Amino acid sequence: MKEFELIKHFFTEQTVKRKDVLLGIGDDCAVIASTEKQNIVVTTDTLVAGVHFPIDTPARAIGHKAVAVNLSDIAAMGAKPSWLSLAITMPDVNDVWLGEFCTGVFDLCEYYNVELIGGDTTQGPLSITITAQGLTPENSYLSRAGAKTGDWLYVTGDIGDAALALQQINQNVSVESEFIDAIRKKLDYPKPRVLAGQALREYASAAIDISDGLIADLGHICQASNVGANIVLDAIPLSNIMRDTLLLEDAINLALTGGDDYELLFTVSEDNKVGMETALSHAGTPVTCIGQINASQTISTTLNNKPVPITNAGFEHFSANK
Amino acid sequence: MKEFELIKHFFTEQTVKRKDVLLGIGDDCAVIASTEKQNIVVTTDTLVAGVHFPIDTPARAIGHKAVAVNLSDIAAMGAKPSWLSLAITMPDVNDVWLGEFCTGVFDLCEYYNVELIGGDTTQGPLSITITAQGLTPENSYLSRAGAKTGDWLYVTGDIGDAALALQQINQNVSVESEFIDAIRKKLDYPKPRVLAGQALREYASAAIDISDGLIADLGHICQASNVGANIVLDAIPLSNIMRDTLLLEDAINLALTGGDDYELLFTVSEDNKVGMETALSHAGTPVTCIGQINASQTISTTLNNKPVPITNAGFEHFSANK
Repeated sequence: MKEFELIKHFFTEQTVKRKDVLLGIGDDCAVIASTEKQNIVVTTDTLVAGVHFPIDTPARAIGHKAVAVNLSDIAAMGAKPSWLSLAITMPDVNDVWLGEFCTGVFDLCEYYNVELIGGDTTQGPLSITITAQGLTPENSYLSRAGAKTGDWLYVTGDIGDAALALQQINQNVSVESEFIDAIRKKLDYPKPRVLAGQALREYASAAIDISDGLIADLGHICQASNVGANIVLDAIPLSNIMRDTLLLEDAINLALTGGDDYELLFTVSEDNKVGMETALSHAGTPVTCIGQINASQTISTTLNNKPVPITNAGFEHFSANK
Repeated sequence: MKEFELIKHFFTEQTVKRKDVLLGIGDDCAVIASTEKQNIVVTTDTLVAGVHFPIDTPARAIGHKAVAVNLSDIAAMGAKPSWLSLAITMPDVNDVWLGEFCTGVFDLCEYYNVELIGGDTTQGPLSITITAQGLTPENSYLSRAGAKTGDWLYVTGDIGDAALALQQINQNVSVESEFIDAIRKKLDYPKPRVLAGQALREYASAAIDISDGLIADLGHICQASNVGANIVLDAIPLSNIMRDTLLLEDAINLALTGGDDYELLFTVSEDNKVGMETALSHAGTPVTCIGQINASQTISTTLNNKPVPITNAGFEHFSANK
């Protein structure tokens, strides 16, 4: 019975009350009203402690990140997030921890008007599974398929800061102490590109969010779209922290393979380029063109206009340019 | 990357392809078409190994049960199950285990035309979180609220066999060897009352599925409906195995408190009684009237027409009747 008391106390204290939620937390199911022709997008992501976030991550950041990674998937479909189901498994009931966790969850829910409609609380090693849903107009959504030869390849924001934070935590890289807070924030409190995703719905031919790393996620677009791509490595947007901390080639490699950025990677036809750039500028989202789609079915990279080979670990160090 | 290969291999081999699923497993989100005014019901349940099922439960049973407990929640709303998202955390990748687990999942999905639309696979101690969704006509669903003074209280099927199986596994009770398979099947392969739930949508005033135990789940109805109830203990439907294995009072107590039955507990007005019994008879579902709703705000029990007190552990042993 403890479980139910828990759910009641913490998870019913949200302030978001959507009109389309007829019945929220507390019955066998939540009930949602779908009153017009529309598409519903659904995604599920699990975060396991020690795998998807460092063990000592603050509770509020865990709550934020668990929601953010799911909203990021919804953003990549061009949809508007709407409802969330949250299943949490935790070793014991710690009221302080749970309160902070819920703050992380609800801050993001409130910002995007997402209602928590249900969930489950169980005992065990810490992990969180969220199923998030969103809405798009009928037959109007982005997917990984649809990129065409000649389309331009874009990313939002800067790439690699979250991976740099993880490297710093794992003591693989030494980072100036003044930078640590900023990159930890990128890792712990990723900002899903929800507004940018919706703005892209009219313009992009394919989209994905960068969770596994730029190369891996571009691979998913290429596979689903049956195309190849060339990345202009010089063009990858890197923060000043990345540039100040790492050699350029190491920074680029981290950006290519690091993951956890939750930026959007998308393709746009020549015809839609200006419209997209205008729309994203209105949405306040920085975007950078980092390459182009081709028919090769493989991913290639260039630096200083010269081809450089890539492997699973990134591109090979180009000693001549050091 | 192993994770993605896994999902592809095992979880895309389902045979159910629903017309309303525009995009299934393999993109950032699944996409569902909602083309008419309808309600969507959503439930999330986590099963943790050693908590919600014995550690040595066969993989196929775990897959079955993870789906069944969620479909049971959908049945309790009177809805038709439609889509499933599955997140599995497991200690290692065992192809044989995963194949059997998927058989358990997909057999039930195929029977009810439920499509697996997404999920996540992560490494860690075994647990499964499923978010299941279902459909009902607009503003037509059952909930825990709605029971009224004078309504009759009903259950589907027999109560207590699953709890008896758990008692036998934990060596608290000795069960004749010829009965063990039958009760283990009730525990491992519960049958969600999906058709009965839909048939009840026209007749019941409130409904819940029995997962926590008859008393606890009746308590949820009483609380949500702001009523009380009397249970006629003599009327509780017990299997012959329960009657043969336990003293009547122990059998009744196990039925009251055991849980894991996944039968439906529901209330029906005097006016709807005949209609409901006819509809459930057509659906092939046995139902038993076990009491009545009253205005007391508490749950009472009677045996041989005499009141007997109940506690958290069930009703108190009534030594005079032994």
